[in-house]
Amino acid sequence: MNTVAVVGVGLIGGSFALALRKAGFDGSIIGVSSQATIDAAIRVGAIDEGRPLRAAAAASDLVYLAQPIGGILRTLAEIDAVVRPGTLVTDAGSTKVAIMEAARGLRRAQFLGGHPLAGKEQRGVGSAEAELFRDRVYVLCGDCSTAAARDFVTWLKRIGALPVELTPEEHDRVVAFTSHLPQLISTALAIAIHRHVAAEYSGISGPGLVDSTRLALSSFEVWRDIFATNQSSVAAAVDAFMTILGELRADAGSLENAFAEGSEAAARIRATKAVP
Amino acid sequence: MNTVAVVGVGLIGGSFALALRKAGFDGSIIGVSSQATIDAAIRVGAIDEGRPLRAAAAASDLVYLAQPIGGILRTLAEIDAVVRPGTLVTDAGSTKVAIMEAARGLRRAQFLGGHPLAGKEQRGVGSAEAELFRDRVYVLCGDCSTAAARDFVTWLKRIGALPVELTPEEHDRVVAFTSHLPQLISTALAIAIHRHVAAEYSGISGPGLVDSTRLALSSFEVWRDIFATNQSSVAAAVDAFMTILGELRADAGSLENAFAEGSEAAARIRATKAVP
Repeated sequence: MNTVAVVGVGLIGGSFALALRKAGFDGSIIGVSSQATIDAAIRVGAIDEGRPLRAAAAASDLVYLAQPIGGILRTLAEIDAVVRPGTLVTDAGSTKVAIMEAARGLRRAQFLGGHPLAGKEQRGVGSAEAELFRDRVYVLCGDCSTAAARDFVTWLKRIGALPVELTPEEHDRVVAFTSHLPQLISTALAIAIHRHVAAEYSGISGPGLVDSTRLALSSFEVWRDIFATNQSSVAAAVDAFMTILGELRADAGSLENAFAEGSEAAARIRATKAVP
Repeated sequence: MNTVAVVGVGLIGGSFALALRKAGFDGSIIGVSSQATIDAAIRVGAIDEGRPLRAAAAASDLVYLAQPIGGILRTLAEIDAVVRPGTLVTDAGSTKVAIMEAARGLRRAQFLGGHPLAGKEQRGVGSAEAELFRDRVYVLCGDCSTAAARDFVTWLKRIGALPVELTPEEHDRVVAFTSHLPQLISTALAIAIHRHVAAEYSGISGPGLVDSTRLALSSFEVWRDIFATNQSSVAAAVDAFMTILGELRADAGSLENAFAEGSEAAARIRATKAVP
């Protein structure tokens, strides 16, 4: 891996580039983004230069797609024509089924789907950091056995990520529960309070409410494509959650066991970093 | 206010005592708790001595009930016989309707219901701190106009709390949305993940899941009495929330507006400390 193109140099793309550098990658890193973003990314030392997609892809042996999902899908439709044969194309999109389907058309490039379970509230390359992927699960979908894929996985480990292979269907089903459902819940909770509690009373709350409504601050720009490409899994997760909440509402006698199960599950979520 | 009895010297009772001391209260503070708790409370400087309820109440002009709700209800049934006439009895219970009803029977004591919107994950007097009430809303229910009540409110302000008068019904309706609903949601979310995501995949989640499941770690010992004394308001809050979540699930086209409303509401929750 000598030259890497990062398409979409935001928080994730910028952090991946910074992490490569910190881990000792001494090849060239080319950014593909707006001019303002390129300038900022060069300033923080994430990339060496900016180029249009076609030129960047033609010069690279790894193309890292870190755009919103819609942008990844559009890039996948044009990338095959401009890469050198055998180039590894990978992505960092938050859903995988739609992206893996779109990547089926690639012939010259080989594709490996990816999803780093990393992020923070701030967006943009200005918030990028080399340690963003440290100890975070990094899901991979597709053939990890090629030389290029093995090289990429080696770099993921060097930057501290925890690579895990999953099918795209299993990935999307899991994140519907662990990421997309919590987002919808937080938004719905904030709306419920907005509609049912007088504005001057919203200070009458415990500190827990701030945690519970943090995801509601998320930008829809990030989430639009996630929900658009994972509708059935998200609907199933919402249904499963509402069934459980409905049981807690209907049967006060079930609460003690529910607290025990919820507490155990919450503790496990905190304990689990690495996965098989 | 010369002598204060704190009944139940845990996180809240202990913090109230420490806060009084820090704010310059130089009267006597008597604790009513188990011997082990009394010893610990004396060690951290929260109280001067421990006594049984009867002796403590008879010696005090403020009795501060900081037990779980069930304990408060039991103490209210016996306190009137043992206080001096005119003694102010107040409580720190998380629901107010049931407690205000139980306090209607008081004849010798005057009662002022209270609920400090303060707390933290750790319990017990060992976690108590003088600044726990600083900048936190402190709801009061009942007659704040008596001399004893005015004196108590002055002390609340000295310890940094933000006193707010509410009817018990309005209080219980508001906290059903801002405290009890978030607790049930967090528990139900943790259970949903426990039941629908394989244990080895619970690391496949964004950092937001830790926030969203923090309340699920709560002890049922604290929550049992809260739910038992606020059933109808909690049920109404769950219904309102499920209606909104159901709308988000059914209509993807509504998500953009929902994110805008949720984000605005979440920002307001963060901005609101003081209330009317």
